Amino acid sequence: MFKKILIANRGEIALRIIRACKEMGIGSVAVYSTADKNALHAQLADEAICIGGERPHDSYLNMQAIIEAALKTGCEAIHPGYGFLSENSEFAKLVEACGLKFIGPSGDIIDAMGNKVEAREMMIKAQVPVVPGSREIIKSFEELEELVEEIGYPVLIKASAGGGGRGMRKAYHASELKEAYTTAKAEAKAAFGNDDMYCEKLIVNPKHVEFQILADHFGHVVYLGERDCSIQRRNQKMLEESPCKVLDEDLRQRMGEDAIKAAKCCGYTSAGTVEFVLDHEGHYYFIEMNTRIQVEHPVTEMVSGIDLIKEQIRIAQRLPLSFTQEDIKLNGYAIECRINAEDPQHDFAPQPGHIHTLHFPGGFNVRVDSHIYQDYDIPPYYDSMLAKLIVHAPTRLEAIKKMRSALSELVIDGVITNQKVLFYIMHQVDYVRGHFDTSFMEQHLKEMVEENG
Amino acid sequence: MFKKILIANRGEIALRIIRACKEMGIGSVAVYSTADKNALHAQLADEAICIGGERPHDSYLNMQAIIEAALKTGCEAIHPGYGFLSENSEFAKLVEACGLKFIGPSGDIIDAMGNKVEAREMMIKAQVPVVPGSREIIKSFEELEELVEEIGYPVLIKASAGGGGRGMRKAYHASELKEAYTTAKAEAKAAFGNDDMYCEKLIVNPKHVEFQILADHFGHVVYLGERDCSIQRRNQKMLEESPCKVLDEDLRQRMGEDAIKAAKCCGYTSAGTVEFVLDHEGHYYFIEMNTRIQVEHPVTEMVSGIDLIKEQIRIAQRLPLSFTQEDIKLNGYAIECRINAEDPQHDFAPQPGHIHTLHFPGGFNVRVDSHIYQDYDIPPYYDSMLAKLIVHAPTRLEAIKKMRSALSELVIDGVITNQKVLFYIMHQVDYVRGHFDTSFMEQHLKEMVEENG
Repeated sequence: MFKKILIANRGEIALRIIRACKEMGIGSVAVYSTADKNALHAQLADEAICIGGERPHDSYLNMQAIIEAALKTGCEAIHPGYGFLSENSEFAKLVEACGLKFIGPSGDIIDAMGNKVEAREMMIKAQVPVVPGSREIIKSFEELEELVEEIGYPVLIKASAGGGGRGMRKAYHASELKEAYTTAKAEAKAAFGNDDMYCEKLIVNPKHVEFQILADHFGHVVYLGERDCSIQRRNQKMLEESPCKVLDEDLRQRMGEDAIKAAKCCGYTSAGTVEFVLDHEGHYYFIEMNTRIQVEHPVTEMVSGIDLIKEQIRIAQRLPLSFTQEDIKLNGYAIECRINAEDPQHDFAPQPGHIHTLHFPGGFNVRVDSHIYQDYDIPPYYDSMLAKLIVHAPTRLEAIKKMRSALSELVIDGVITNQKVLFYIMHQVDYVRGHFDTSFMEQHLKEMVEENG
Repeated sequence: MFKKILIANRGEIALRIIRACKEMGIGSVAVYSTADKNALHAQLADEAICIGGERPHDSYLNMQAIIEAALKTGCEAIHPGYGFLSENSEFAKLVEACGLKFIGPSGDIIDAMGNKVEAREMMIKAQVPVVPGSREIIKSFEELEELVEEIGYPVLIKASAGGGGRGMRKAYHASELKEAYTTAKAEAKAAFGNDDMYCEKLIVNPKHVEFQILADHFGHVVYLGERDCSIQRRNQKMLEESPCKVLDEDLRQRMGEDAIKAAKCCGYTSAGTVEFVLDHEGHYYFIEMNTRIQVEHPVTEMVSGIDLIKEQIRIAQRLPLSFTQEDIKLNGYAIECRINAEDPQHDFAPQPGHIHTLHFPGGFNVRVDSHIYQDYDIPPYYDSMLAKLIVHAPTRLEAIKKMRSALSELVIDGVITNQKVLFYIMHQVDYVRGHFDTSFMEQHLKEMVEENG
């Protein structure tokens, strides 16, 4: 059993992991940047070590400082959270090379799934459906043109190393192809230092449906239902729910079993997410596998009752899963809203600043995961998420009403947030009916912003 | 279906009911005293009406003002919460006489259960075990002496109209009997305007175990497991948990079935609680039935997944229960801590004052029910409870660890609270082992207060 874990992250996810450690009787070591010296994760962990300057590169991406902190404090494992180094295979390998456990899959698996072309190839071999497209890195624009002639427009050009919507462009006509290719490639180069590109048929306005899986070191893999993450703005998820309203039991089972195949074909271990797009005819296609815990993991915890962070830690301790697929019972509906410090009136620009008044909603089946507090200063160096508000109820409509009620209780004073936009979505007829896909935000953004100015 | 409900209460329970109304699409009307004009329940309800001065008698106990407010705002029902008028049969009858629904049992049932001697007699007839003692009101001290000779010391002298520990005294020897009788009688007269007394064999250091029941208007009665409320100080509960660790399935079922008998024998409807004492040999005795929702209802909600306030409202709407006893599945362990503004160093004296800094814990399966907020002024006129902190986990030990973690995150600055005492209890060996009864607080109070000065 681990005696002490270092949490290589900040914000709500660092808190989330510290809480799990406390409940498991495991010591916790927080790391923090100079900008986070008053951060809650540094206050609540058993120990806290400053690992560098405010910029992520100097601290939360500073592998050496993090590993040194872990070794110095006698940690046996490192939990990377999400973002930062969580999908950095070099870090995972370095952690293990230093005799520590990386709480996540091995560096090789991260590598394989991080390389979108390789991952796609593995899925084709495992007979998991993938979107029609290039099976290898596109070597030239001419090669791209040939491929597109074969699969037809519209297409999506993606960076192999990409994620979070960066290094990605759509082309609906031949006239757009060249620019889409060059801008996506340039963006990929800048963001990931790698401009390997591939191309897929664009599934127009699909749903984004992802399956949570857990895999231990003994070949057991289970799925814990799915999350509908279709409400996105520029490929950034804004709210997520579980289950996905349009899946029937048959489709859920087929997709879940394909998610298990996806995990098994790469020898996956730990918690992971298999992302699919689902078109309006019920066809689904693997898009990628996220080899880490995700922001939206709480909706799965609410419907399954299973603590995913604790499971990650147990798996890293080489414990077998304590339940089978048949043991997993999903109950009711859960919705998560991401409360971000951003200004909807100004293209959702991040809003660092000072939180004067803070009041979180409470009550039955209302969960708040947040690192902010009264008089907290939001540093400008990190992402703009302030809190995750999660509700759970027997039916989807009750969950929506609970979220409305919870959002109406939430007070964050001092910075502009997306709270009103989320409140709007919770009242939008198509959302309430469950008639929405990844085009929802684009379609409704103007009215939302205007009506909630 | 109700369109609008008036909530005849304040504090966290008023909020709790307002939230349930919002989630059910029912309009809510809050009433508030002049001392509560900035209270959260007045802010969050759809409408809010001032019903009188700060003293309970002028506002939250002012039946006429409350019923007028309900009629004026077009309410169809009144939810009384707990405390105040919740067990006042006159109020229940008046509400119904005015053409409104009282969300609770009928006035006659409240009368019957409120009269401890009558309730006891009904239980004897229904073959629910009761503590040996007087079957009628004790008419004189001489009669009391005769009875005690029969049942033996120690004995408990109780006010028939009593509750919450008032009008109650113990006597271990003949020498104490006279004083116990006269002081309890005087206290009862002052507190309830009724000094009818009865006497029971005192079960020494029992556990306080109560069963939550739900009963509809169609003869369906179910129990939703039990709560162990043995951690009390002067008969005031401090923390509660569900399930009770020492009950095995057989005993749980027998007590649950007796709780159903207790409800059926008086034609009970709505949510109610059947309280038992459980001695160290596994014998249990009915002590009273609470004809209202209780402070500690959340632990039952956490383990059952059933929203008790919504069920109360549905029952008042004459809907049948939507589940049977067999449908009720209890999962894991839940613990509730009552966070009170009171000074453990000074006999837990209430601490009105100003809350400067407030930070509530969050995360998976951590629930906060509270009416306080940053810069809230605690009025001196009402009870000292500031918040209820509730956790839920698969095992009791995990729940304890979660509560420890949650308590360590809780910050209430500006007034003295019992937070450290609760934190102490969560680490006390006997508590953790489950070896505790109603004598726990008395036994450990000194060390708790000394170690947590």
